[in-house]
Amino acid sequence: MPDSRIHHATLRQRVVDAAHAAALIQPGETVAMSGFTGSGYPKAVPQALAAHIAQTHARGEAFRIQLLTGASTAPELDGALAQVDGLAMRMPFQSDPNARKQINAGKLDYLDIHLSHVAQHVWFGFYNEIDTAVVEVSAILEDGALVPTTSVGNNKTWLDLAKKVIIEVNQWQPVEMLGMHDIYYGTALPPHRLPIPMAHGDDRIGQTTLRCDPDKIAAVVLTDAPDRNSPFNPVDADSARIAGHLIDFLKHEVARGRLPANLLPLQSGVGNIPNAVLAGLASSGFHGLEAYTEVIQDGMLELLKSGVLRYASCTGFAFSPEANEEFRRNLAFYRSRIILRSQEISNHPELVRRLGCIGMNGMLEADLYGNINSTHVMGSSIMNGIGGSGDFARNGFLSVFLSTSTAKHGSISSIVPMVSHVDHTEHDVAVIVTEQGLADLRGLSPKQRARAVISHCAHPDYRDGLQDYFDRACRDSYAKHTPHLLPEALSWHQRWLQTGTMQPSANR
Amino acid sequence: MPDSRIHHATLRQRVVDAAHAAALIQPGETVAMSGFTGSGYPKAVPQALAAHIAQTHARGEAFRIQLLTGASTAPELDGALAQVDGLAMRMPFQSDPNARKQINAGKLDYLDIHLSHVAQHVWFGFYNEIDTAVVEVSAILEDGALVPTTSVGNNKTWLDLAKKVIIEVNQWQPVEMLGMHDIYYGTALPPHRLPIPMAHGDDRIGQTTLRCDPDKIAAVVLTDAPDRNSPFNPVDADSARIAGHLIDFLKHEVARGRLPANLLPLQSGVGNIPNAVLAGLASSGFHGLEAYTEVIQDGMLELLKSGVLRYASCTGFAFSPEANEEFRRNLAFYRSRIILRSQEISNHPELVRRLGCIGMNGMLEADLYGNINSTHVMGSSIMNGIGGSGDFARNGFLSVFLSTSTAKHGSISSIVPMVSHVDHTEHDVAVIVTEQGLADLRGLSPKQRARAVISHCAHPDYRDGLQDYFDRACRDSYAKHTPHLLPEALSWHQRWLQTGTMQPSANR
Repeated sequence: MPDSRIHHATLRQRVVDAAHAAALIQPGETVAMSGFTGSGYPKAVPQALAAHIAQTHARGEAFRIQLLTGASTAPELDGALAQVDGLAMRMPFQSDPNARKQINAGKLDYLDIHLSHVAQHVWFGFYNEIDTAVVEVSAILEDGALVPTTSVGNNKTWLDLAKKVIIEVNQWQPVEMLGMHDIYYGTALPPHRLPIPMAHGDDRIGQTTLRCDPDKIAAVVLTDAPDRNSPFNPVDADSARIAGHLIDFLKHEVARGRLPANLLPLQSGVGNIPNAVLAGLASSGFHGLEAYTEVIQDGMLELLKSGVLRYASCTGFAFSPEANEEFRRNLAFYRSRIILRSQEISNHPELVRRLGCIGMNGMLEADLYGNINSTHVMGSSIMNGIGGSGDFARNGFLSVFLSTSTAKHGSISSIVPMVSHVDHTEHDVAVIVTEQGLADLRGLSPKQRARAVISHCAHPDYRDGLQDYFDRACRDSYAKHTPHLLPEALSWHQRWLQTGTMQPSANR
Repeated sequence: MPDSRIHHATLRQRVVDAAHAAALIQPGETVAMSGFTGSGYPKAVPQALAAHIAQTHARGEAFRIQLLTGASTAPELDGALAQVDGLAMRMPFQSDPNARKQINAGKLDYLDIHLSHVAQHVWFGFYNEIDTAVVEVSAILEDGALVPTTSVGNNKTWLDLAKKVIIEVNQWQPVEMLGMHDIYYGTALPPHRLPIPMAHGDDRIGQTTLRCDPDKIAAVVLTDAPDRNSPFNPVDADSARIAGHLIDFLKHEVARGRLPANLLPLQSGVGNIPNAVLAGLASSGFHGLEAYTEVIQDGMLELLKSGVLRYASCTGFAFSPEANEEFRRNLAFYRSRIILRSQEISNHPELVRRLGCIGMNGMLEADLYGNINSTHVMGSSIMNGIGGSGDFARNGFLSVFLSTSTAKHGSISSIVPMVSHVDHTEHDVAVIVTEQGLADLRGLSPKQRARAVISHCAHPDYRDGLQDYFDRACRDSYAKHTPHLLPEALSWHQRWLQTGTMQPSANR
């Protein structure tokens, strides 16, 4: 196997097993790994490192690292290292249940960062120096060039900045992906930055491989292991309704001349609701669509296959096992239609604004005035993180937030008087959609927004309660620009914590 | 006077008095006016319109308009129109006491918008069509080109999009300013946008005048009236301390190699504290500084004069009467050092990120976790608006927020358990400074931020109360990532509403 995937003579001699490679990582190190939304993460070294940490802890010695990635990874990485209490700091995004438990228990310091900020902030020196990078590739070419796999994330930055590098060559990843990536090496630190030379989302502005000084590569590990490839749920009735409302709105915008007939480049968050929107677009009559997004998931592949979507630019995949099979089976078809970029480019404010992306992201809750909570359950417990939603919501053409109107079997209203945490402010939210309907907040003052959100988005079980709060706030609030009753503003969340439902007892 | 300032034959024939021009504006119109931070706003037509509205109301007839500007204006515009209840909608920013009173009484719908978003959202069709534009210029050239005055704001967009245009030619504005402006006509709607060809903040990428189809210009009004030119307070001890902390920090960043010796382009909000920072920079030993900002105020002129600042790019002036005199006296000197641009360019995310601006903005309050409230007193009463602070905080190199640690004679703590409104999220805030000290939040988790904010920024009178809240939240919060006690989170604000101070009674 080394012969077929490692074509650089010196690096072929650096092949070791995962345990030997992991042993290069010292306690306290800042370690930057590949991986974005469950794709392209190292499969073997993190688990070997976790085993090594567990042994060290068993001897009564301390061993924790600071861990940076592109975004979320998988049980073999975040899960394994959290399980052995091996993480002292984690950034910029994660979604692993074990790590989440540690974060919300107050045992793991988690930094929840805009995904477009990560690489530049590391370059700026805002974080520790990167001691070790661990990056998955599918092959090493004769000249040492590294062929990326199913995500790019921050790999360029990690390889540029790390003092030492461990490469995992994953035989499971198709070598035929060579040529799909577009790695832009034109970034610089201010005051030396220049315009990014991209006018269309499918422009290629970089090279197809990553580079790394071979002298820095301390170990090469061979793996043959699949990406996480989590299944998606089939589209349920509520998700289909949400998708329907949004697609009707987009058609209306085209009819009014506010959007071109083929829309503008779509950005779509990950999850069942965004996937339902993509499925809805497949049969919507739209053609020639474009996607300039972080992650492509099952629905995007289907849109590409049916020809509704012309291309998809992303930084990583989040496929179900079936979509992964489809991708591999028809790789020649997808090769010319998918471009994988560094996440600083996929999410770049300059490009998101220039291209005019339509940002479509999930949310946990929205409040009457259009503030969005994407991250915190009941104000204190983090779910995943903001990810790239802020990059697109602030800088794109249109920012859309999607959720069912209730959660946890109806015990939680996704529309609340005041959100318990703000990730997207009233200044950044154009459209809110639930299965109940769509609130178009553009051009509305706070009180006008409240009326739209209550009547179009709230679940009937909670609508009267919201209207009652709003009416009393309009009457009794200290001021009437953004009326609030402060002692009650967060009382729905507190009621859920105390009683298990946001419904007042009289209504139960 | 018309002869010396109006060189276009046809337009010279359109000169009318302000009352006749104002009579062109019909009830219900969407009217877009020039003006940014008290400079370059029309001086006569708004007052004539206000008189006309008052007469109409006196007859028992309705007359209100929707008003768009660049940013805040002056008593002659916002004040006059609010006074006669002539505004149905106001955007994107204002700071007039009369208008504020109407907004907080719930009588005037106010839309508080990122200043870089305004022009493009109007182009996108997110608002009503512009019926009338009222724009101040200093002269009309032979070919009909319009010479801008002390602010550019959204004037290019208003002139391009309005159905009819009223021009005020203000003799008070120096004609020698011709050549200082840089009006970029390369913007487009997506998908036709191209990179903005600017690499340095002093690059000129446009033309020196505004253009407008003379056939659209329905009236020209002659004025001779000064800009608002509000005085600044002399630098007080607290502002000087805030400036000192920030300048020490910037020097530290240079010493650590994280900033060039001449820093990066400075953006500075308007007000006494930012002005104190500029005054501090004058004697700090820095040289070759640059400013890429919205507004230049007194301190910037002093920095230019002393040679500490190489140039200042802005979209408007906010001078005191003395600074205005200085500017006029030495206009030849400032001509080559000041560039006035459209606000979509002065605040453009693409440029703010490329240039790596250092954003320095005031705030009303910050919370333990680094969320910033820039706009709402006690969660419901709007002060002014977010202005351009979000354009710079999200996309710049560094986002700094500044305030004294208390307000209203110590009855309000600017550091609170949870802010009562969020304008800048935890994801967007790098540094918080009060006269007590500076909290560097980069690379910190929420709880680490809380410790930094309490120990470095809180006033001693409130420090124990904040520490007590934080300790109990760390113990009793639902989850421990962002510990909060929801029934208490906004109790400091409620206590102020009820008792006039955030101090618990035991401490009074």
